[in-house]
Amino acid sequence: MDQRQRVLRYAQTLMARPSVTPEDGGCQTWMAERLQQIGFTVTPLPAGGVENFWAIRGESGPIFCFAGHTDVVPPGPREAWATDPFTPELRDGVLYGRGAADMKGSLAAMLVAVEDFVGAHPRHPGRIAFLITSDEEGVATHGTRHVVDYLAARQIRPDYCLVGEPSSAERLGDVVKNGRRGSLNARLRILGQQGHVAYPELADNPIHRALRPLTELVEKQWDDGYPDFPPTRLQISNIHAGTGVTNVIPGQLELQFNFRFSPASSLESLQKAVVDLLDRHGLRYELDWQFSGPPFYTPPGKLVAATQRVLQRRLGREAQLSTGGGTSDGRFIAQLGGEVLELGPRNATIHKVNECVELAELEDLAAIYQGLLEELLVGTAA
Amino acid sequence: MDQRQRVLRYAQTLMARPSVTPEDGGCQTWMAERLQQIGFTVTPLPAGGVENFWAIRGESGPIFCFAGHTDVVPPGPREAWATDPFTPELRDGVLYGRGAADMKGSLAAMLVAVEDFVGAHPRHPGRIAFLITSDEEGVATHGTRHVVDYLAARQIRPDYCLVGEPSSAERLGDVVKNGRRGSLNARLRILGQQGHVAYPELADNPIHRALRPLTELVEKQWDDGYPDFPPTRLQISNIHAGTGVTNVIPGQLELQFNFRFSPASSLESLQKAVVDLLDRHGLRYELDWQFSGPPFYTPPGKLVAATQRVLQRRLGREAQLSTGGGTSDGRFIAQLGGEVLELGPRNATIHKVNECVELAELEDLAAIYQGLLEELLVGTAA
Repeated sequence: MDQRQRVLRYAQTLMARPSVTPEDGGCQTWMAERLQQIGFTVTPLPAGGVENFWAIRGESGPIFCFAGHTDVVPPGPREAWATDPFTPELRDGVLYGRGAADMKGSLAAMLVAVEDFVGAHPRHPGRIAFLITSDEEGVATHGTRHVVDYLAARQIRPDYCLVGEPSSAERLGDVVKNGRRGSLNARLRILGQQGHVAYPELADNPIHRALRPLTELVEKQWDDGYPDFPPTRLQISNIHAGTGVTNVIPGQLELQFNFRFSPASSLESLQKAVVDLLDRHGLRYELDWQFSGPPFYTPPGKLVAATQRVLQRRLGREAQLSTGGGTSDGRFIAQLGGEVLELGPRNATIHKVNECVELAELEDLAAIYQGLLEELLVGTAA
Repeated sequence: MDQRQRVLRYAQTLMARPSVTPEDGGCQTWMAERLQQIGFTVTPLPAGGVENFWAIRGESGPIFCFAGHTDVVPPGPREAWATDPFTPELRDGVLYGRGAADMKGSLAAMLVAVEDFVGAHPRHPGRIAFLITSDEEGVATHGTRHVVDYLAARQIRPDYCLVGEPSSAERLGDVVKNGRRGSLNARLRILGQQGHVAYPELADNPIHRALRPLTELVEKQWDDGYPDFPPTRLQISNIHAGTGVTNVIPGQLELQFNFRFSPASSLESLQKAVVDLLDRHGLRYELDWQFSGPPFYTPPGKLVAATQRVLQRRLGREAQLSTGGGTSDGRFIAQLGGEVLELGPRNATIHKVNECVELAELEDLAAIYQGLLEELLVGTAA
């Protein structure tokens, strides 16, 4: 069976197993079996109702790790889909179904790439690994984070990690992500004094009191920027005060805001800056923080260089490096200290109805992933 | 029966008839009967489920009008009352029950004052009138406003109007209200563009967009002030945006605010200033106004002078003129063009549990009301 047929078959097999977070639907068992057949040692690492596994092949030397997730976001309204979201369908060379692009297609490409690479190099130098979770689209506490803890405790550090997230924009490989911003959530309650609108001198309107500090908060420049990163930004997502009554000054104002921050800021620097700002305005307040994850950044090095060479060879294009967009599990893996890169199919349809991926894209992706193994373990281009 | 006994009996009679807005509980029928017995012509003016009446005595000449309401606010939690709210009880010279101070006590004092005045001057010069509603504590659309329309259509204009609202603070007669601020409500929806917090450049955060305009709104000086009035003030009572999700920039921000304004501003001037401010900031918004009522102001004239003389004579004190606090039905009566003054018992317990009034206060109030009739219709002090 040629690469195209296999990547299609594998993608269909995974997509036909419904696995809305944190469900895995048997995807990982099937993947683990295939990996074991070609010599991988698989360690299941379930935690808190989440399926995870770590698989490795090879005795020593640099580790090239494929990272990904078998879980998918919910399909949404089924009547809006042209096909059944969990019955993959190929139409005019395009494969439709939930997970096609995010990221069962990538998992299929990884399997094909590894099978062919192992077929060509049964006793390859270095090691190949898989870090697979079913909790990437959810709260992400019992997934990759858990496996990373397991690896750190055993001092296992992937030298190169390729995350199969759909990084591409217009064409496959036009964008790869070599970092992501950190994310920090806060819940702020500004305290005032309730009263009647006709007697404002007897009350303390927390809305009025908040306006100048909040203006400063949303207009502040938090750091001097960081190469390849968008600026650190704060967004207020929720603000609430008052019970609907028109003649009562409310006693408190509640709001939530989120930071997306570059490595130029840190959890501590942002928290201190916010507290300083609020204190300087003399506010009475309560503040709770929720840390989603630090930023990660892989400066151009061996992994980025190898990726650019492979993309140039296979597709005749150079990828743009990006650190934009949301968070990914790359943030956890990067804590182990290796180079982390995200490269996967186009992301135009992810998290939407009629999610799809071109079969040709998956075939290219399998070849690119295989090329990376050649570049970094065998060193064909060295 | 002396004045003290009668004012107590009358207050108890009214307070024993539960009349939570817009209910009247038979209070007005009873009042109307007493007034008819001393020569008043009573015109019931019910409207929209609200009981009202207009009563007048005398053929021609200046009209002195007593204005008030028979409705009361709900008693609230009965277990918090020391007495039954609708079973008036006299304890140590203090009369307890809902409506004692706001304002069935005042109505009782008006009746006693008028009975004694008519007894002394059966053929008094001028005219005495009563404007009574059961919708002062509610939406106030079918109450005094309705009676005022009736009077305006017949070109009846009270020259002097004494509203029995509990104006006093520490001691009876220490404060009289010769005006009230106007009230204007607004509901503002600021429009943005929903999006993901990680991609603020693809969204338009209406919270961020609102902060500078709202700061200007709450800090703006709306007019240059007006003698005897507190400054015109704006209070934001409600602000809401976001659905609780932390990673979504909301599409709109909704808020409500209220103006309390002096005669130095008008409905039109405030509306124009708000629209100008919002437009200058380039906001997209929807704005709905709800006009509660214009300000009223009675500059010191015959009514204020007579009141000061009577207070000096009876209580040895001079009242402070005030235009502060909430709205009252005086705003509607003032539109007829006469002098309007509010003078009633101390307001410390109104709208609260264990509402009460001192019996001595009501006796003084009856004497003061009678003194005003003497001053302004008979002219004993002229």
